[in-house]
Amino acid sequence: MTDDYYRVALPDSELPTQWYNIIPDLPAPPPPPLHPGTLAPAGPDDLAPLFPMALIMQEVTGDSYVDVPGGVLDVLRLWRPSPLFRARRLEQALDTPAKIFYKYEGVSPAGSHKPNTAVPQAFYNHQEGVTRLTTETGAGQWGSALAFACAQYDMACEVWQVAASYRQKPYRKTMMEVWGAEVHSSPSEVTEYGRGLLAANPDHNGSLGIAISEAVAVAASDPGTRYALGSVLNHVLLHQTIIGEEALKQLAMVGETPDLLVGCTGGGSNFGGLSFPFLREKLAGRMNPVIRCVEPAACPSLTKGEYRYDFGDTGQMTPLLKMHTLGHSFIPDPIHAGGLRYHGMSPLVSHVYDLGLVEATAISQSECFAAALQFARTEGIVPAPEPTHAIAAAVREALACKESGEGKVILTALCGHGHLDLAAYEHYLSGKMVDLDLSDEALAAALADVPDLERTA
Amino acid sequence: MTDDYYRVALPDSELPTQWYNIIPDLPAPPPPPLHPGTLAPAGPDDLAPLFPMALIMQEVTGDSYVDVPGGVLDVLRLWRPSPLFRARRLEQALDTPAKIFYKYEGVSPAGSHKPNTAVPQAFYNHQEGVTRLTTETGAGQWGSALAFACAQYDMACEVWQVAASYRQKPYRKTMMEVWGAEVHSSPSEVTEYGRGLLAANPDHNGSLGIAISEAVAVAASDPGTRYALGSVLNHVLLHQTIIGEEALKQLAMVGETPDLLVGCTGGGSNFGGLSFPFLREKLAGRMNPVIRCVEPAACPSLTKGEYRYDFGDTGQMTPLLKMHTLGHSFIPDPIHAGGLRYHGMSPLVSHVYDLGLVEATAISQSECFAAALQFARTEGIVPAPEPTHAIAAAVREALACKESGEGKVILTALCGHGHLDLAAYEHYLSGKMVDLDLSDEALAAALADVPDLERTA
Repeated sequence: MTDDYYRVALPDSELPTQWYNIIPDLPAPPPPPLHPGTLAPAGPDDLAPLFPMALIMQEVTGDSYVDVPGGVLDVLRLWRPSPLFRARRLEQALDTPAKIFYKYEGVSPAGSHKPNTAVPQAFYNHQEGVTRLTTETGAGQWGSALAFACAQYDMACEVWQVAASYRQKPYRKTMMEVWGAEVHSSPSEVTEYGRGLLAANPDHNGSLGIAISEAVAVAASDPGTRYALGSVLNHVLLHQTIIGEEALKQLAMVGETPDLLVGCTGGGSNFGGLSFPFLREKLAGRMNPVIRCVEPAACPSLTKGEYRYDFGDTGQMTPLLKMHTLGHSFIPDPIHAGGLRYHGMSPLVSHVYDLGLVEATAISQSECFAAALQFARTEGIVPAPEPTHAIAAAVREALACKESGEGKVILTALCGHGHLDLAAYEHYLSGKMVDLDLSDEALAAALADVPDLERTA
Repeated sequence: MTDDYYRVALPDSELPTQWYNIIPDLPAPPPPPLHPGTLAPAGPDDLAPLFPMALIMQEVTGDSYVDVPGGVLDVLRLWRPSPLFRARRLEQALDTPAKIFYKYEGVSPAGSHKPNTAVPQAFYNHQEGVTRLTTETGAGQWGSALAFACAQYDMACEVWQVAASYRQKPYRKTMMEVWGAEVHSSPSEVTEYGRGLLAANPDHNGSLGIAISEAVAVAASDPGTRYALGSVLNHVLLHQTIIGEEALKQLAMVGETPDLLVGCTGGGSNFGGLSFPFLREKLAGRMNPVIRCVEPAACPSLTKGEYRYDFGDTGQMTPLLKMHTLGHSFIPDPIHAGGLRYHGMSPLVSHVYDLGLVEATAISQSECFAAALQFARTEGIVPAPEPTHAIAAAVREALACKESGEGKVILTALCGHGHLDLAAYEHYLSGKMVDLDLSDEALAAALADVPDLERTA
C-alpha cells in the first residue's frame, strides 16, 4: 500500500473463517457459572431450554478455534471484512505524533458490531429447528441486529423493548419492524410477569432486567423458541473476535504494531472481540500492547465494582456469574450510552482484568461527547454514544503523546454509528448534558444487595 | 476474484482522479442557460456573485476530463472508493436468472452521494478565499453533506431548512450542527424576504423555492460568502461521475458488462453520476446497456413534463434552463422521497433524454417501499426513500427476466441509507401510505405558468 492511506480494506478472500477462543491460552481458566439454586457449576443441560446445543458447546469449549460455518460467512460477507481507518485528519487536528487507527463496525446493516453474533446465533438456532427467537433490547442496537439476522434465515423474532426506550425511540422500533420483527413494549401484556407489573403501574418505564425476564419466559415456555443474548457470555465474545482477527491482518498490511488498544466496555463483547486476538499475540510474546477498557464513569463496573459472584439480571433468574459488578439491583443513571448501562461485566473480560492482562479507566459522558464532536468534524463519521468513550480515551492518549513526543500506535474500535442517537448530540450541543458519575453512596447501597457467595460456594 | 463474492471492493489506489464531462461526447451540445432579463445565454460573469470561478469554469468547460485536486481526494478517501455489491440474496428471493449489482453511496459520512460534490464545492470556494457557504435543504441530505464538507475546510456553513422539515426532522438539523453548521428554519428572520413571509404567516411551512431565495440572498449580499447547489447544474453532475467511473472498474473486476442501468432521478445528479461514464462507453461502441431514469409518479418531470425553458426556482430568480419541467410553480405532493420532489430536471439529463440516449419510467411510492422492504430483509441495508425507486425498477426487470429466462446484468445505485427516514417506513408498515400520482389536471395547471420562451428566445 502507499503511505498516504486513510482506509485499510481487507480483501474479501481474507475474511477470517475461524473464531478465536482465548480461554485455553490464559494462565488460569475463568471461574464457572453457578446454578442459582444448587450453587454447583452450571452445566450444558441447565442452559438447554434457552440456547441451542451448538451455542452451549461454544460456551464451554476448550478448543482454541471454532470454524465459522459457510452459512454464517455468506451473511457476514454482506458487510465484512469491515474497514480499518487511519484517523489522519483527527491526528492533524490534535497535532499529535501518535498514529490513531479505528476499526469501524458501523458498516453493518444494523449499524453496530452486534450482527457479528446475531447472525451465528440465528444460524445455529435455525439449524436445530428453532423457528422463533426472543430477546430484550434497551437502546435498540441488539434488537435491531437480531431482527436483521432472523430475516436472513426466515425466522420469527420477538423483541421486548424497555418501555421508556420504546416510547422515546420509535425509529429503532420501526427499524426492527422493517426487518420483520415483532416489537413489544416491556413490561408487556404478553407475559404473566409483565401483566402483573402493568396492573400495578400502567405507565411502567420498564428496565432491561424486566425485558430479559419476559423474553426468557416466552422462550422457556415454547419448544420451538429460544432466547438470544447480545453480550456477556463466552460464545458472544467468541463471535466478536472476528473484529480483532481482521484488525490484526489490516495493521500487518500497513506494517504497524499497536502500542495501545482502547475499547469501550458495557457487557464486554465489543472489547473482547477487538482485544482478545491481540491479547493472544501478547501472551505469545509476538507484540506487547497495553490493552485498556474504557467504561462510563456513571457505570464503572471494572474500576469501582467488586469481583464476585452475582446475578446477570435484576430478577435473579440467571446463573450466578463471577464478574466485576456494581450489584444486580443497580440501575445506572440515564446516560446516553445505553449499551454501557449494565451493572456487571462479561465474566471473561472480568477474568483477564483480574489477571492483570488488561487495565481499565472510566470517563464522564461530557468528555466523551466533546471528543465525538471533534471526531465527527475531522473523520466525518458520527459515533454512537458507546464508542465515544473509546474515542475520548484515544484522544487522551494522543494528547499525552503530543506532550511526550512519542509516536505511539493506538488502535480502537468505533463499534457503531450514531444516526439513531442524534437526540444525545442535541442534548450535548444545547448545553444541557451533565455528567452522572457514580457516587460512593450509590455504589455502597447497590453492592449491599450482592449475595455473599464466596463463603457459601 | 472468486465467483461467490458479494461485495466488489475497488482498491484505494484505483480511486478515480478525474471527473468525466459528457458534453464533448454528445452528438449535440445542450442548450445554454438564458439570463432571465435579457434572454441572452448566461455567461460566467452572471454566475460570479454566487459561485467561485473554478466551479463556473467547470460548468461551461469543453474538456472531457477534469482533474480532481489532491485536497479533494484527501477527503473523498474517507469513504471512497465506495463498494459495489452483487445482490445475491435479493436475486435468490426473486428467483431470477438476472444478476443485480448496486453501487452503495450510503457509506459516506452524510449517508448519501451528496458529499461527492459538497467536498469539491467547499474546496474550490475555500481556495478562492470564501469563508462561508449558504444553501437550502429540504429533507436534509444536501444540507448534511455541505455541513460535513465545510467542516473539512474550516468554513462556516449556513443552511436554510424548509420549515415543515425543520419541525418534523429535528435529527437532520442536529446532524448538521454536529458538523458545525448553523441551521435556520425557512422562512427565517435572517432575510428581508423571510421576514415578510413570516409577518404574513408566522406558521409558514416554507418551501424549497423560498429556502433557495434566502440562501441566495445572503450569499449575494456578502463578498466572503457564496452559495452551493446540490444537484441540477453541470458541475454537480461532473463531480458525481466518480460513482460511475468506479462502478465501471468494479464490474470489469468481476468480468461483467451491464445490460441495463436504472437510477432514480430528482435533480439528476445521482443518475448522471452513475450513468454518464457508461453512456460514454455506449457512445463509443464498447458496450450497449439500456439506461433508464426512474422518477416518482408524483413528480414525473421526464415522463409527463415538457422540454422547454423554465425557471429553476419558484421565485423566478435563477437563469432560465432548458429542461423537462412540470412548471416552476408546481409543488409536488408530500411523498417521502423528498430528494425527488423537484419540478424540473437537470438540463444535461433532460438533453440526453431528448436525444433518445436514455429512457425513463415513473413508479408509485407504495411499490417502491414494498421493494425496499424486500431489499432490506435480504440485503440488510435499509434504503433511503429516493433509491427505493431504483430498487423497484430493478426488481421489475429481474422479475421480467424470470419470465423470459434472460440472465441480464442489472446495475443500479443505492444512493443513500434510510436511517433518518424511518418515519417513512413506519408510514408504510402501518398501512397508511397512499400513492400520490400526479393527475392530468394538476399537471395542466402547473404547466400553464411556464413562460412561453420558445418564441421569444
